[in-house]
Amino acid sequence: MNKQIPYKIYLQESELPKQWLNLRAFMKNKPAPLLNPQTLQPMTQAELSQVFCEELVKQELDDTTPYIDIPEEIIDFYKMYRPAPLIRAYCLEKKLGTPAHIYYKFEGNNTSGSHKLNSAIAQAYYAKKQGLTGVTTETGAGQWGTALSMACSYFGLDCKVFMVKCSYEQKPFRREVMRTYGANVTPSPSTTTAVGRKILEEFPNTSGSLGCAISEAVEAATEKEGYRYVLGSVLNQVLLHQSVIGLETKTALDKYGITPDIIIGCAGGGSNLGGLIAPFMAEKLQGKADYRFIAVEPASCPTLTRGKYAYDYCDTGKVCPLSKMYTLGSSFIPSASHAGGLRYHGMTSTLSELYDKGLMEARAVEQTSVFEAAEYFARIEGILPAPESSHAIRVAMDEAIKCKETGEKKTIVFGLTGTGYFDMMSYEKFHDGKMTDYIPTDDDLSKGFAGIPKI
Amino acid sequence: MNKQIPYKIYLQESELPKQWLNLRAFMKNKPAPLLNPQTLQPMTQAELSQVFCEELVKQELDDTTPYIDIPEEIIDFYKMYRPAPLIRAYCLEKKLGTPAHIYYKFEGNNTSGSHKLNSAIAQAYYAKKQGLTGVTTETGAGQWGTALSMACSYFGLDCKVFMVKCSYEQKPFRREVMRTYGANVTPSPSTTTAVGRKILEEFPNTSGSLGCAISEAVEAATEKEGYRYVLGSVLNQVLLHQSVIGLETKTALDKYGITPDIIIGCAGGGSNLGGLIAPFMAEKLQGKADYRFIAVEPASCPTLTRGKYAYDYCDTGKVCPLSKMYTLGSSFIPSASHAGGLRYHGMTSTLSELYDKGLMEARAVEQTSVFEAAEYFARIEGILPAPESSHAIRVAMDEAIKCKETGEKKTIVFGLTGTGYFDMMSYEKFHDGKMTDYIPTDDDLSKGFAGIPKI
Repeated sequence: MNKQIPYKIYLQESELPKQWLNLRAFMKNKPAPLLNPQTLQPMTQAELSQVFCEELVKQELDDTTPYIDIPEEIIDFYKMYRPAPLIRAYCLEKKLGTPAHIYYKFEGNNTSGSHKLNSAIAQAYYAKKQGLTGVTTETGAGQWGTALSMACSYFGLDCKVFMVKCSYEQKPFRREVMRTYGANVTPSPSTTTAVGRKILEEFPNTSGSLGCAISEAVEAATEKEGYRYVLGSVLNQVLLHQSVIGLETKTALDKYGITPDIIIGCAGGGSNLGGLIAPFMAEKLQGKADYRFIAVEPASCPTLTRGKYAYDYCDTGKVCPLSKMYTLGSSFIPSASHAGGLRYHGMTSTLSELYDKGLMEARAVEQTSVFEAAEYFARIEGILPAPESSHAIRVAMDEAIKCKETGEKKTIVFGLTGTGYFDMMSYEKFHDGKMTDYIPTDDDLSKGFAGIPKI
Repeated sequence: MNKQIPYKIYLQESELPKQWLNLRAFMKNKPAPLLNPQTLQPMTQAELSQVFCEELVKQELDDTTPYIDIPEEIIDFYKMYRPAPLIRAYCLEKKLGTPAHIYYKFEGNNTSGSHKLNSAIAQAYYAKKQGLTGVTTETGAGQWGTALSMACSYFGLDCKVFMVKCSYEQKPFRREVMRTYGANVTPSPSTTTAVGRKILEEFPNTSGSLGCAISEAVEAATEKEGYRYVLGSVLNQVLLHQSVIGLETKTALDKYGITPDIIIGCAGGGSNLGGLIAPFMAEKLQGKADYRFIAVEPASCPTLTRGKYAYDYCDTGKVCPLSKMYTLGSSFIPSASHAGGLRYHGMTSTLSELYDKGLMEARAVEQTSVFEAAEYFARIEGILPAPESSHAIRVAMDEAIKCKETGEKKTIVFGLTGTGYFDMMSYEKFHDGKMTDYIPTDDDLSKGFAGIPKI
């Protein structure tokens, strides 16, 4: 064991990032702009401000400023649970018998249990600063809703969460955590919104999707004075806030002179991966260094590996702007057998553009192999991972095993985005041998693709 | 805000304790020895070794060695989740408007979710070193069982857990975490042991108690070759291992020149409190410093505040040694309305002796006021506390509020022993206004007292 590198690298408070990194500013080929679903013209600041907080709209549209100051109030909040540790997986390396060095950035050390809090607190802060009464949002597996509830509670904002129905039912205790933080939680689709009622009429037995829940949350925000909608992934602003993950990771690695070869993250809407890779990708785009980046997604929701790169609606109800992204079609709903998050039909435009230009790889993995990796990791490294994060674990382990075969001493860094305390029902299924894999056929996917507008 | 003291004080790996502190070595009045339930003579090393691992028996009986080396393997494991942060509750202080400074030692930053892992890993290590196949234990709220499952998984030991039936039913996902770590979990009382069958015959509708589960686990250990019994609290050895909490806390405080006035911990069997106060109490016993210590227990299981100081059985089945301790009687079972742990009928002999000599205070609190404090704390400080830990939060807040009234700038340190992710059913009850308080009448208690042997 290398005694010089501790198990956990914790930064000092003075080493914490004071600015977020805006990856788009480093890209020659910028992600395409959001389009107004009526006019198909780029969304203006005024249009976006009807839905989002003003300061967040500015961040959303800014693709030139490389670094943006983190407000002091957010830095103060970050200090409550950051820095997140960068952990050397000594035990995992030993157990795998790999010459690779494995590090993971653990974002689960806060009550929301995931990295989502990094953006939740920023979005709540700007909402409060604008004098709003509250915010609305959607949540899938519940991590984002929990994070936002905490952030809203901190700033005294009202918080309305539309939770994808199947998660609401699979994770009864998630709701209670959100209630503990004072949030109001509604299973989606619901009868409380026009778009929810319309979706229920068309698909009465639907288990819901993020796309549906987004439509409902947007409607709820725009119909009520003093409310705005906030989103936990996909948007540029979210990637901006999440860059704190990558910045801390890079500072910690630099401190010990470690250069990663491969950086791996799970990808649903892309918030964690976009944040983790931000400073590394910025270096790569500037030709200062080279790294391999791997986005890991569920085989049951294969946005990057089998989706189309096209303008598409961000939500099922088609009330949101269109985004150019890898997409499975806004009507795509993963099989009910799919456990955990990473179930969004699209991918943030920044990562979509980078992937399209060959700057990032993607891999789809099946959930039983993901839970195998999760349990293996839990027993070796102690931390009980969220199913989402375990996608990254699966591929990190696969890459480390390859190193064992080739004898290469690569340095692998992956994002351990959160904990699995609220996913025990899925673990139970896995333990009882009741978990199945689902890979959509080309025919299944073609139905979703049919709904992608021709732009 | 005092910029010099960070939100979280993390020690460097080099500052971690290398030795546990054996508080009994500092006591002039030693805790009374364990007695053989048949002969009523002090338990010998040979007798204890039939139930416990040999090295742990030595630790159990050693009341003279002040410091005991922590084996390198355990230090390595500790590095995976320690140091635990000592957190300055700046936000809580501000919200309460108190001049008091509040610090909490947070032991929930590991998958088992509590401080129990500190002793679990030590006990599993000694079991492995002795060449055993596995260990048996009981668990109440599930924290100890989870911790032991993790520790056994790490060392490749079989782990059989008897879980108090009402917790088993209230916390369906706890079982899955233990299974994830490879443990076998049985609700107690069960029909798998003779003592379990006997208890079920006498009390067919019992929701179980730690005392029952201990009896079953001891029977299961002694009947099977290569197994020993391990216990997560009450014993001297457990307090020894848990001293790592207090030692880290003291190092962190000393580093910033902070002297606590009041040290507060919840107390069920006493493992966390005994560990937290160890180095401070050692100073007090040596006349080097003075501190106030407050043990907080549930009003529904008021061992210290309303119990008797006497020799009593450690378990309901009366198969374990007798211990001189504050006790409610080994047949005492708290009301089913009682949520969370801290439901043991006795208190570790060391704390009992210190309390009896007036070196420590005790306070009983009702559970609705505990959950009020828990929710308040969660919203302000972010961390979702376990109900057990929230007993300490309640009294820490009460003391801070007193400081507000008197203007005193006291320094309060409390132990935040764990997280409440698996306690959402209790939080739900609290949110829905369905949580009730229960204070046993003197008549209720007298039934338990009647079973205390006359020794």
